[in-house]
Amino acid sequence: MDGVILIGQQETREGNGFFQATDPSSGTLIEARFPEATADHVAAACALANVAFDEYAMLAPEKTAQFLETIAEEILAIGDDLIVNAMQESGLPRARLEGERGRTVGQLRLFAALVRKGEWLDARLDPALPDRQPMPRVELRSRKIAVGPVAVFGASNFPLAFSVAGGDTVAALAAGCPVVFKGHPAHPATGELVAKAIGRAVAKCGLPAGVFSYLPGTTHKLGGALAADPNIKAVGFTGSRAGGLALMRIAASRAEPIPVYAEMSAVNPVLLLPAKLAADAEALGKAFIASLTMGAGQFCTNPGLLLAIDGPDTDRFTASAAEALAGNAALTMLTPGIHAAYCKGVDALSAHASVRLVARGLVGEGPHQAQAALFETDAASFLADEALGAEIFGSTSLLVRCRDAEELKRILSKLEGQLTATLHMSAADEQLAAALMPLLVRKVGRILANGWPTGVEVSHAMVHGGPFPATSDGRSTSVGTMAIERFLRPVCFQDIADALLPEALKSANPLSLPLRVDGALK
Amino acid sequence: MDGVILIGQQETREGNGFFQATDPSSGTLIEARFPEATADHVAAACALANVAFDEYAMLAPEKTAQFLETIAEEILAIGDDLIVNAMQESGLPRARLEGERGRTVGQLRLFAALVRKGEWLDARLDPALPDRQPMPRVELRSRKIAVGPVAVFGASNFPLAFSVAGGDTVAALAAGCPVVFKGHPAHPATGELVAKAIGRAVAKCGLPAGVFSYLPGTTHKLGGALAADPNIKAVGFTGSRAGGLALMRIAASRAEPIPVYAEMSAVNPVLLLPAKLAADAEALGKAFIASLTMGAGQFCTNPGLLLAIDGPDTDRFTASAAEALAGNAALTMLTPGIHAAYCKGVDALSAHASVRLVARGLVGEGPHQAQAALFETDAASFLADEALGAEIFGSTSLLVRCRDAEELKRILSKLEGQLTATLHMSAADEQLAAALMPLLVRKVGRILANGWPTGVEVSHAMVHGGPFPATSDGRSTSVGTMAIERFLRPVCFQDIADALLPEALKSANPLSLPLRVDGALK
Repeated sequence: MDGVILIGQQETREGNGFFQATDPSSGTLIEARFPEATADHVAAACALANVAFDEYAMLAPEKTAQFLETIAEEILAIGDDLIVNAMQESGLPRARLEGERGRTVGQLRLFAALVRKGEWLDARLDPALPDRQPMPRVELRSRKIAVGPVAVFGASNFPLAFSVAGGDTVAALAAGCPVVFKGHPAHPATGELVAKAIGRAVAKCGLPAGVFSYLPGTTHKLGGALAADPNIKAVGFTGSRAGGLALMRIAASRAEPIPVYAEMSAVNPVLLLPAKLAADAEALGKAFIASLTMGAGQFCTNPGLLLAIDGPDTDRFTASAAEALAGNAALTMLTPGIHAAYCKGVDALSAHASVRLVARGLVGEGPHQAQAALFETDAASFLADEALGAEIFGSTSLLVRCRDAEELKRILSKLEGQLTATLHMSAADEQLAAALMPLLVRKVGRILANGWPTGVEVSHAMVHGGPFPATSDGRSTSVGTMAIERFLRPVCFQDIADALLPEALKSANPLSLPLRVDGALK
Repeated sequence: MDGVILIGQQETREGNGFFQATDPSSGTLIEARFPEATADHVAAACALANVAFDEYAMLAPEKTAQFLETIAEEILAIGDDLIVNAMQESGLPRARLEGERGRTVGQLRLFAALVRKGEWLDARLDPALPDRQPMPRVELRSRKIAVGPVAVFGASNFPLAFSVAGGDTVAALAAGCPVVFKGHPAHPATGELVAKAIGRAVAKCGLPAGVFSYLPGTTHKLGGALAADPNIKAVGFTGSRAGGLALMRIAASRAEPIPVYAEMSAVNPVLLLPAKLAADAEALGKAFIASLTMGAGQFCTNPGLLLAIDGPDTDRFTASAAEALAGNAALTMLTPGIHAAYCKGVDALSAHASVRLVARGLVGEGPHQAQAALFETDAASFLADEALGAEIFGSTSLLVRCRDAEELKRILSKLEGQLTATLHMSAADEQLAAALMPLLVRKVGRILANGWPTGVEVSHAMVHGGPFPATSDGRSTSVGTMAIERFLRPVCFQDIADALLPEALKSANPLSLPLRVDGALK
């Protein structure tokens, strides 16, 4: 069954030819053909999103919440077809994808609850003070409103939770932004199933058609046209550094520059502090390999860099990690391209004069499988070559042996912005950890202790973001409820008659919103 | 008395030569010489700001609040010297500058109160759920922290309230960001008096020296070096469109791109709706000229564009405005350069084939005085020439006569982003106003009715911002307490021991902050 382009409620197969996805487990093309969306489709989808904006942005929170919940129901209603297609297109196992569907649906419901509470509107009132001296004060009301239609680019590594109905889409829809989604070419059947589920939710909720469109395609040109469209007012992206930087350039060079939220690359340093390492080197080695190799290491928060002070405890750690790695079965990667890039990155480390191989996992039995790897180097060599700090997407990591805590600090201070940093520490490491905290706070979006960075909770205090180049804009998060803020802007209404005010700001407070009066929440 | 460069608590006169300001009222150079800060001063000030960051960003809110209040006291302690210097350097009258000093001090105190309340930290806790199925939940805590050292460029038109201790400086200091201030060359003595007051407050409060530095200078190169310095993590700017765009380009092309909050240009459309015009044309004409010519029209929110439906009531309005304008005394502009640009802009309108002069104010009696002006054109001509929508900084405005409401809407929909839009309306205009509201919400940061946009209240619901090119980033405001958000980013702490958590997030809540637990404020 061939795929479609969705411009609002309209389906079309008339693209610029067709493309097919690859089943990464077998390396063969999957039969279904998907149309390549064109610049005309971009223009049509964005124009429709623009038409939808006025009504959708001002929708009552209850209606928006119902819409998000309906999307969740429609995704569940797809049934096993969604899981089967996602398995075939991503090579990911059933349990993982079922869990990811649960996360996707849970995320939609969490944002529905957030939208209903209405705090995100940040409704404010500074009452008029007609008798104030030397000048009376006017009445000021303000609320946050959606920035406009948003272009969202999904990730290959979460074909459900960070793709069509994923984090950026949910945050944008929750904020009141119509979404034009650029379908990921690695999972077009999965993407289309979800896109149609959103389309059904739009229709069921009686929303303007332009609230959601879906443009499948394989070219950078398509993505570039979408980010450049004058009706688009913000971009959400999860993917490679090169891709994110390209979108940032396009957005900055528009006649009207727009914000880009690109989540790009990180090596997520893991610090093995001395007392903890002395106490638990073997257990840490095993647990580290489990985190490194889970899902073939295809996580934004994969621990790609280990920092430890050199010595026998570090040797015990590597020996344990090497043993665990030696029996580690290779897993299929998401796409042939990702697998090729992984192999290239690992080969470059292998060939690096200052880098030593600690151990590798088992060779894959099928195509496109990631043979995991652990390398090591010394701090001076790491500091001497910036390339050693670059992300290799997949289950490989580099241990840097530091002479002492000062050298470890020096490395941290040279690192680029990161999504996460992890401290493995005992109570006896507290002083060193305290000395490292200010550096970590500057560099990352999430600092964690005695765990692994690969789990990202969808909740209220989660920050999945971080200073450049972890993301293009460290002022926000792409996971968790704070993500709604990235798609909002404030608007003030001065002495505006009640009839003309948005529902959220009318004197009678018909939406029962929390209101900040003269700065204090009522 | 010659001026200084301030690198933290260090004063130096060793710049790249000296510059002098002009007294715009007389057109003569003022005697005092000020050193031109160099790239070396930029590097030193930014390095010192970087050193100050860790301590200052984590300061207890009470301490930050006391610092802001001490700055206010130190500014008042300067006494009349501040007003006398500001009068000489800006050509603005005493009453205006005394009022502006009150606003500056009030703004510092308002932010002190805001900082003390601590809501801006957005402290959050998602408690651990060790028994959750299928996976336990870790403990997550988050707070907002300062983005890093901030470069601030002040405006010429508010030598106190939007200069050295102005809106951006206060918001950045409140958020915990050290500030490196690029002194405005039009008011170096005024700027230095305030910079030294901030320096005394830094010393009195025992803060790290790098919390504030002051770099006087006249060149774009100096400003460019400041925005490009790797220790700077955000830019605040108020000034010309060309200046703002240049800073945006520099910030985007850095190895680590940073946010720029540039408040650039606006014509602030004023819509004279038919019923109101029929009822009040004469009074509106008079009141409009008062708003247009106040302070020689040197306000970001000056009403530079009037939209009305053509007819006899519009004629009554222009007749009344023309009469008021004819007796309007010219006022001295801020600098010779601003006066020259004003004259050039007015001359271009005068010479425009499709533009007709309605009236001019009195010719100035001194140098650099703005002879106010009102022009008119028709909607078709306005739509045909983009240049007619560009800001002319000063007391000139262009009335566009529209055939009907549809043409008025067409003009609104073609306008670029604006700081404000004003509706002059009666109850009978409500239907038309309602039809215009969605367009206005998209285009501006503040919509007001039956007033004039030139007053900008410093309060909680104020938005002084708006879509590009009114500002570089319509997601925030440069006036009012919401401005603190522009200099913050969230950081998450996962399973971090209490001893290592920032004070704001410790279990015992030693700062007594409002805490959001599982999404709900406690």
